[in-house]
Amino acid sequence: MQITFLGTSSGVPSRQRNVSATAIQPEKSRHWALVDCGEATQHQLLHTPLSPQKLSIVLITHRHGDHCYGLPGLLASCQLNGRTEPLTLVAPEAVWRYLQAVIELTDLHITYPLQFVAVNSALSLNIAGFRITAHPLSHRVPSWAYRFEETGIPKKLNLARLKEDGIPSGHHYACLQAGEDVELPDGRVLNSAEYTFDSWSARTVVIAGDNDTPELLSEACRGADLLVHESTYTQEVLEHVGPEPQHSSAERVARFAASAGLRNLMLTHFSPRYLKKARKKRDRSIEEIRHEARLHYSGRLFLAEDFEAYVLDRNGRCHYVQNLKRDHHRQPGKQSSTRGAPVKKEE
Amino acid sequence: MQITFLGTSSGVPSRQRNVSATAIQPEKSRHWALVDCGEATQHQLLHTPLSPQKLSIVLITHRHGDHCYGLPGLLASCQLNGRTEPLTLVAPEAVWRYLQAVIELTDLHITYPLQFVAVNSALSLNIAGFRITAHPLSHRVPSWAYRFEETGIPKKLNLARLKEDGIPSGHHYACLQAGEDVELPDGRVLNSAEYTFDSWSARTVVIAGDNDTPELLSEACRGADLLVHESTYTQEVLEHVGPEPQHSSAERVARFAASAGLRNLMLTHFSPRYLKKARKKRDRSIEEIRHEARLHYSGRLFLAEDFEAYVLDRNGRCHYVQNLKRDHHRQPGKQSSTRGAPVKKEE
Repeated sequence: MQITFLGTSSGVPSRQRNVSATAIQPEKSRHWALVDCGEATQHQLLHTPLSPQKLSIVLITHRHGDHCYGLPGLLASCQLNGRTEPLTLVAPEAVWRYLQAVIELTDLHITYPLQFVAVNSALSLNIAGFRITAHPLSHRVPSWAYRFEETGIPKKLNLARLKEDGIPSGHHYACLQAGEDVELPDGRVLNSAEYTFDSWSARTVVIAGDNDTPELLSEACRGADLLVHESTYTQEVLEHVGPEPQHSSAERVARFAASAGLRNLMLTHFSPRYLKKARKKRDRSIEEIRHEARLHYSGRLFLAEDFEAYVLDRNGRCHYVQNLKRDHHRQPGKQSSTRGAPVKKEE
Repeated sequence: MQITFLGTSSGVPSRQRNVSATAIQPEKSRHWALVDCGEATQHQLLHTPLSPQKLSIVLITHRHGDHCYGLPGLLASCQLNGRTEPLTLVAPEAVWRYLQAVIELTDLHITYPLQFVAVNSALSLNIAGFRITAHPLSHRVPSWAYRFEETGIPKKLNLARLKEDGIPSGHHYACLQAGEDVELPDGRVLNSAEYTFDSWSARTVVIAGDNDTPELLSEACRGADLLVHESTYTQEVLEHVGPEPQHSSAERVARFAASAGLRNLMLTHFSPRYLKKARKKRDRSIEEIRHEARLHYSGRLFLAEDFEAYVLDRNGRCHYVQNLKRDHHRQPGKQSSTRGAPVKKEE
């Protein structure tokens, strides 16, 4: 299961970070889901192997522009590039009305099926290799987290039990493994679930929108492997800015992640004041965010950057894989330079 | 007077070209005007010295997304970056309604003064060092060209005439030069216009939106120095695609520019099928556009690329200056490499 960050800045884009967009892709599939679609998300995609034509579902966390202004352009380009596959959009009602207004007023003709699902707490979708649910957050406007639980995990036969129950091998083994119940010639009915088990535990990722109260995610994070959450500020800056923007600090998220027993925590949506390379004395470094989070959370901690791809492995461990834009330029077979090489990037 | 191309692709962005946006800036001013604002125009600006805070006016040629989807994000970022200066928006009425819908539905609060002017043939604005007029084109939706005529050209005294009329030097010389009429102690009233002349002829640039009939610009181009016009296709491809998209071919624009006696012609808004570096045999090269235009136009011909800055000098000659993104990375004082060096780029 792969998570790719297409935008990790809050509010405005910078030269290093675009506004919010996160891709999540199941193992062994070219289909994928997109959470949020800030302006120029389609431009970011041009530097990744993620194809807009294989995008199955877009989920918008809330109606602020830095999370949805890229939606009309992405949908328009899908149209111009000949998309015919249906696309599902999950979002607050206001985002759908925004999109409808744009379509009407800018002469945009979308002919592939675009299915809108208004987000609410009862949402439960099976799509693109995930069961997706939605969980309300606390922000200036209604904001949501989306929980992605892996589906379609291949089953293994419980051979010990089959032997114990004296069930001879045959075609019905394959049926049981495929999830079908079977009736034996002797009349016995075998329930697939009783004679199989998942090859691995379903992996679960929660990707949250803007939110000042991480504790609201207690239920959504139960059994989850990874939480992707905004950490717009450090606690000091959050207190200086005041509560009005309704964002979280690194401390706030880290404390929650620790209390929820989360093994992997990914921070994103950083205020542009935090620079990757602080040059002047008054510059704030992104390392301040990392340092503050580390004080309160001892699990696997990551700070997302644009174009970074991460894998959540079958054991529920998150790993940095590569920077899709930067590492793309390395010539195949060429010895990696320090700059282009994938590096271990976690604490 | 400088023209900077922020997007030169039609319809969809590519890795080399963004969708439409062109900046025009008077000589010796940090204030500037923007024609069209495709998605990610604000991102492109991050790689140029053009400051959104010094942007005086945005003019949208028509309501298609590749010409206006960057507007909400640009205006939002101006707000988040503390803009207080007023901004004028000239556009078709539908673009204003689109913007209003976005503002309402995405919780966008713009507190700096945003003045909307609906485009029509009677438009005449004096702003940012230009007198701006609008000229209707032919496209699938109402589309416009904007004509920028330089204003505020410093005056020179007609010393020969002053001497001839026996007018002694004094403070009134400075008044005349500043455009003020003066009364001499002997009662004679001197008209500024009679004793001064412009230091150079006003430069005029016409920047057109999507248009299948360049001849509509005959009036607008009278006395103009430079026409910036779409050349979406070569004639062969235009005929293959058919007239429905209502775009121009290189031939069509070049023939018009020749007949109008234009000294400088800048083509832009290229179909993504024309590649800068054609790699495969079936790839079409952007040089096909240049070649076709050259067959019909012998003036100064340019094909715009993203981040290219051009100067229209006081003699009305257009010159390539530099690629603002690429050449920015050259270290000051360092010997230019072939790749980074400004090159003469015109035929």
